[in-house]
Amino acid sequence: MKPFMDKDFLLSGDTARTLFFEAAQGMPIFDWHCHLSPKEIYENKQPEDIAQLWLSGDHYKWRAMRSFGIEETYITGSASGYEKFLAWAKVMPYLIGNPLYHWAHLELQRFFGIDDILGPETADVVWNKANAIIAGGGFKPRELIERSNVACVCTTDDAADSLEYHRLIAEDASFRCRIIPAFRPDKALAIDQKGFLPWLASLEAVSGTVIGSFALLKEVLADRIAFFARMGCRASDHAFSYIPFEPAGEDELENIFRSMREGGVPDKLMTDRYKTALMRFFAAQYARLGWGMELHFGVIRNNNTAMFQKIGPDTGFDSIADFETAVNLAKLLDSMEIDGNLPKTVLFTLNPKDNYMLGAMAGNFQSSGAAGKIQFGTAWWFNDNIDGMREQMKALANTGVLGKFIGMVTDSRSFLSYPRHEYFRRILCDLIGSMVDGGLYPCDMEFLKQVVRDICYNNAAAYFGI
Amino acid sequence: MKPFMDKDFLLSGDTARTLFFEAAQGMPIFDWHCHLSPKEIYENKQPEDIAQLWLSGDHYKWRAMRSFGIEETYITGSASGYEKFLAWAKVMPYLIGNPLYHWAHLELQRFFGIDDILGPETADVVWNKANAIIAGGGFKPRELIERSNVACVCTTDDAADSLEYHRLIAEDASFRCRIIPAFRPDKALAIDQKGFLPWLASLEAVSGTVIGSFALLKEVLADRIAFFARMGCRASDHAFSYIPFEPAGEDELENIFRSMREGGVPDKLMTDRYKTALMRFFAAQYARLGWGMELHFGVIRNNNTAMFQKIGPDTGFDSIADFETAVNLAKLLDSMEIDGNLPKTVLFTLNPKDNYMLGAMAGNFQSSGAAGKIQFGTAWWFNDNIDGMREQMKALANTGVLGKFIGMVTDSRSFLSYPRHEYFRRILCDLIGSMVDGGLYPCDMEFLKQVVRDICYNNAAAYFGI
Amino acid sequence: MKPFMDKDFLLSGDTARTLFFEAAQGMPIFDWHCHLSPKEIYENKQPEDIAQLWLSGDHYKWRAMRSFGIEETYITGSASGYEKFLAWAKVMPYLIGNPLYHWAHLELQRFFGIDDILGPETADVVWNKANAIIAGGGFKPRELIERSNVACVCTTDDAADSLEYHRLIAEDASFRCRIIPAFRPDKALAIDQKGFLPWLASLEAVSGTVIGSFALLKEVLADRIAFFARMGCRASDHAFSYIPFEPAGEDELENIFRSMREGGVPDKLMTDRYKTALMRFFAAQYARLGWGMELHFGVIRNNNTAMFQKIGPDTGFDSIADFETAVNLAKLLDSMEIDGNLPKTVLFTLNPKDNYMLGAMAGNFQSSGAAGKIQFGTAWWFNDNIDGMREQMKALANTGVLGKFIGMVTDSRSFLSYPRHEYFRRILCDLIGSMVDGGLYPCDMEFLKQVVRDICYNNAAAYFGI
Repeated sequence: MKPFMDKDFLLSGDTARTLFFEAAQGMPIFDWHCHLSPKEIYENKQPEDIAQLWLSGDHYKWRAMRSFGIEETYITGSASGYEKFLAWAKVMPYLIGNPLYHWAHLELQRFFGIDDILGPETADVVWNKANAIIAGGGFKPRELIERSNVACVCTTDDAADSLEYHRLIAEDASFRCRIIPAFRPDKALAIDQKGFLPWLASLEAVSGTVIGSFALLKEVLADRIAFFARMGCRASDHAFSYIPFEPAGEDELENIFRSMREGGVPDKLMTDRYKTALMRFFAAQYARLGWGMELHFGVIRNNNTAMFQKIGPDTGFDSIADFETAVNLAKLLDSMEIDGNLPKTVLFTLNPKDNYMLGAMAGNFQSSGAAGKIQFGTAWWFNDNIDGMREQMKALANTGVLGKFIGMVTDSRSFLSYPRHEYFRRILCDLIGSMVDGGLYPCDMEFLKQVVRDICYNNAAAYFGI
Repeated sequence: MKPFMDKDFLLSGDTARTLFFEAAQGMPIFDWHCHLSPKEIYENKQPEDIAQLWLSGDHYKWRAMRSFGIEETYITGSASGYEKFLAWAKVMPYLIGNPLYHWAHLELQRFFGIDDILGPETADVVWNKANAIIAGGGFKPRELIERSNVACVCTTDDAADSLEYHRLIAEDASFRCRIIPAFRPDKALAIDQKGFLPWLASLEAVSGTVIGSFALLKEVLADRIAFFARMGCRASDHAFSYIPFEPAGEDELENIFRSMREGGVPDKLMTDRYKTALMRFFAAQYARLGWGMELHFGVIRNNNTAMFQKIGPDTGFDSIADFETAVNLAKLLDSMEIDGNLPKTVLFTLNPKDNYMLGAMAGNFQSSGAAGKIQFGTAWWFNDNIDGMREQMKALANTGVLGKFIGMVTDSRSFLSYPRHEYFRRILCDLIGSMVDGGLYPCDMEFLKQVVRDICYNNAAAYFGI
Repeated sequence: MKPFMDKDFLLSGDTARTLFFEAAQGMPIFDWHCHLSPKEIYENKQPEDIAQLWLSGDHYKWRAMRSFGIEETYITGSASGYEKFLAWAKVMPYLIGNPLYHWAHLELQRFFGIDDILGPETADVVWNKANAIIAGGGFKPRELIERSNVACVCTTDDAADSLEYHRLIAEDASFRCRIIPAFRPDKALAIDQKGFLPWLASLEAVSGTVIGSFALLKEVLADRIAFFARMGCRASDHAFSYIPFEPAGEDELENIFRSMREGGVPDKLMTDRYKTALMRFFAAQYARLGWGMELHFGVIRNNNTAMFQKIGPDTGFDSIADFETAVNLAKLLDSMEIDGNLPKTVLFTLNPKDNYMLGAMAGNFQSSGAAGKIQFGTAWWFNDNIDGMREQMKALANTGVLGKFIGMVTDSRSFLSYPRHEYFRRILCDLIGSMVDGGLYPCDMEFLKQVVRDICYNNAAAYFGI
């Protein structure tokens, strides 16, 4: 029996251990997709306690607590931090096989040096120890980032964002980690959502332009992209439930835009035409700038209307879609390639049933434009667990070139979440180590260590060009 | 090499063995979803021979026999029980990796004390031994149930059923197992099927009401639900191919109902509107009574028309669907939650591609109404095998709270099928044991034994409130 | 640690080793689905070098090279064979976990006796060794086939093909392997493709008939099928993206055919009606002749228009579809069964998410017409790897009768690809061996060796009737 989460956690043989300790462990982190707040990084406030760090914004934990039957008061409600922490500690032991169980203990071990196993009996001990350690320093956002050996972070930023906090962070030469924006124009695409016109107004405000046409919208967005590029941006990010593909002429697109501007409600065909055209426009910009385009799909959001009305979005009520995706995704990427504008692209699915479809899809559009130009993105969100990461990497290995994989992202809102990179790296090293131990790959350790270093950091750094 | 199916069957380490022998094995069974016949339980007839027990109604075995190329005469036809048994014995050795192979041998071992391996060479020996043992007693339905340590069974009963046999069974104080109905109003929903009007007539007969409107239908069904509740019912059960969701106003619904009553053939939209409304109505009743609502989907039935015409439904010609499900399922559950009427709900898919979608979906609607209020139901039917159960539990563990899982159901028509609970329990203990042995969960055996007992029995008993 | 790809490659225990070495290894190969060229077999030319053998037509390798970022010049372009080989050698080490890595080394070991590990450092050594060995003989198509112990090959042949090369090969008594055609009338079904009318003209030419009606088309195709049967054909092959099912009357079908003949562009409904009718017609022919009908689905082809225009089809730009399939597939097979004409059928999916759906689907239409009449076809193309084959066999074992599986096909265009059968056989033996070692199946080695021999060769030989 292996001890619980000791130094050999997830490493089942000597080959895996060598790869992890001699190659993966020392690599810096490039977290090229996350939801950390630039404002919080800039303000760099001292956290109050572990409840604030763990439970004030983590919808993963909130879901688990609800699934256990905890009252909402102790989740997002008015209960004190201590009470919420006790409620969380009560749930923990039941999360057998859940990544939250491993993440929480990794965070206690790595940031706090606490080896206790969290449960109702140890909750007070952990609460007191952790809070004393927090009070002793080292838990401000920038401190956590630096302690995690993070070289670069891409935040997620609306096209109309001023990027003011990025500017302020960049001016502070004492902070060694690069914090750069990623261009996420989801609101520009969401013409079927109520928020579109208010968002358009905010874009008009930031650009000082009355946006009376689709052509003008594209001009303004091109300016925003150029601005993001000047601020160091190297990636865009797009979230879809399903992948739209409906080509349309410029006149049609202008009609659609005009109708929306006048408060019209576009139907699905209009929406898909608009989205298709705008994505092709975006692709051309990204290709020109050498950005990586991240396409996430397979999410359905805000599924619980009652809770949405109470506590808003990103509170634990999103889940996995199961749309047919292959044909439209192929056509969308093909249209960009025909235009001569297919950028480096990272394809992410939230539904693991799509793994092989996506691994094969990437192969359709590879070219010498970049090593692994079309990436099958890492297991993410509901798949960010041992099985999900293993299955994604096996699907990638079977259908593509594992050695050119750009690896892990946290996709996180928490400054404590960097041990998830360690989690990934251990699984990666164990996967490769098991292949070597099983006679499926030669024991060329120097080469494999280099591949592991590449997947941990170098491939992504080269791919996005930081 | 482990011996074939010895006491450590499916248990790969000491932790798994401890969990199974010290926690799982002794727990009673609550079989909260099965197709046992209350009539047969009441009548409690002595079975003729092992052919009758094994081959008179088990479409799992029939499918396997057809796949081997056995003539239908020896499956559902006029051949003798002995001939059918020989045909089955001939197929057995080829079922490498099939759960039927394990189930058959578990049944021989547990109920008969027969350790022979069934095949053509041993068929006569087994036939003679087994029939002698049957003749010696202990194989009547109630005896098999009691020998299996079954505390409670939910049968599956039409909304118009008189539940007469349930009443008769309940009157017999000597039978220690509770046999309670589950409310399965599939026929009330199936307005697009030929059987609807005859079923409506049967409902009118049992209720003494002329059901001239949708409003009246709901009243009558509410009465039936109240009657089922008085008979001890704690669960409803609904089977869908795809999940419908089409909201409609009361007038529309009355029009649809009237049209059907007059012999009209509803189109898909009408059918979906009717089903959506009736499901929301049902949900409100279940929520009020604290019942658990079971939603099964992903089945396509009676796919072989020629065989359906010869031997009818439930004879081995159903299989797995692959519809898009996530959006409509989310909307249907959301509509119930908006109504304030979402009951405890168990979501089952027949297509394992849906596992992660479903695990994530459950999380959208959890609340303090119950521990694990929305359950991701166990691997079932075509998934009721080692891989299927393991994958379902891993998906559940990764996306939810495994410790609150309400566990296994047989979904069976056979009184010999209770060793399937043992099969499940061994797989459960091995899954948890392997995590502990691999350093993924602490070796807190007292807690884990309690979790295993909970998943085997206690969680379901608390969930349904028996 | 197991040595890299030694004699026990993929065999993890004594049981697996015994099954492989004493049963699987010595069996001949029946490659009942491949894309070998009868012309090349007839001409039997000496290959120039290993670049020609490996890189002149293998779109699997081309995809991998593109995924690494190799310039197209070195893939399908004007670079020399040596340069292409160097480029390929550069990619190889990065293909950790990819079947190409194993296939390439298996081919070096088995055909060349080369144990070197191919990479940039060894590229020149391997190049020189391999080419010297090729020059020494044994690498002509027929030699490779005979060295691989291939008893019979089914090529893939258009309905209008003259089968001239099959005739010529058959006349040469010195060649011990049977090369027979498989009837692949995809072009007869593709009325929505530009190539249809030219293809129809070629059919008119070969048949000497002006095909003015759908009825006449069927007559001519029936003649072609009879001709194929005289040439030894035992299988048909059909490739679908999605499975169509739209019944239609004869008048409608004649209208559709007439419209197409006059250059009309059929819509999806017309296309599906035509395809449904023609498939039912084909099924009747196949059933009468005892052929096996292969249905492949889940492919989307030529996804990269720019590359298609440059280098045409079958160059590495096809991938995996994700259509809903179950309902139409069930209805199509049911319609054939209702007609009394369901032939032996092999169902293949390119999307592994369909595995359980397909395993269950097969069970709907089994009968005593043949052992394993409806086969769940082997893992194929993007699934032809360790995980894919294992998952397909586990799904088959769980839902059907593994012992009646007709096993592996190469689906290959390369005369060097026969070690893929060895790859499959090792995985098969390891799967069964692991079950025995784990106590899941009795250690009846004589029976299991027979089952392994059956799956390797005998089942397919009996199924297709060669």
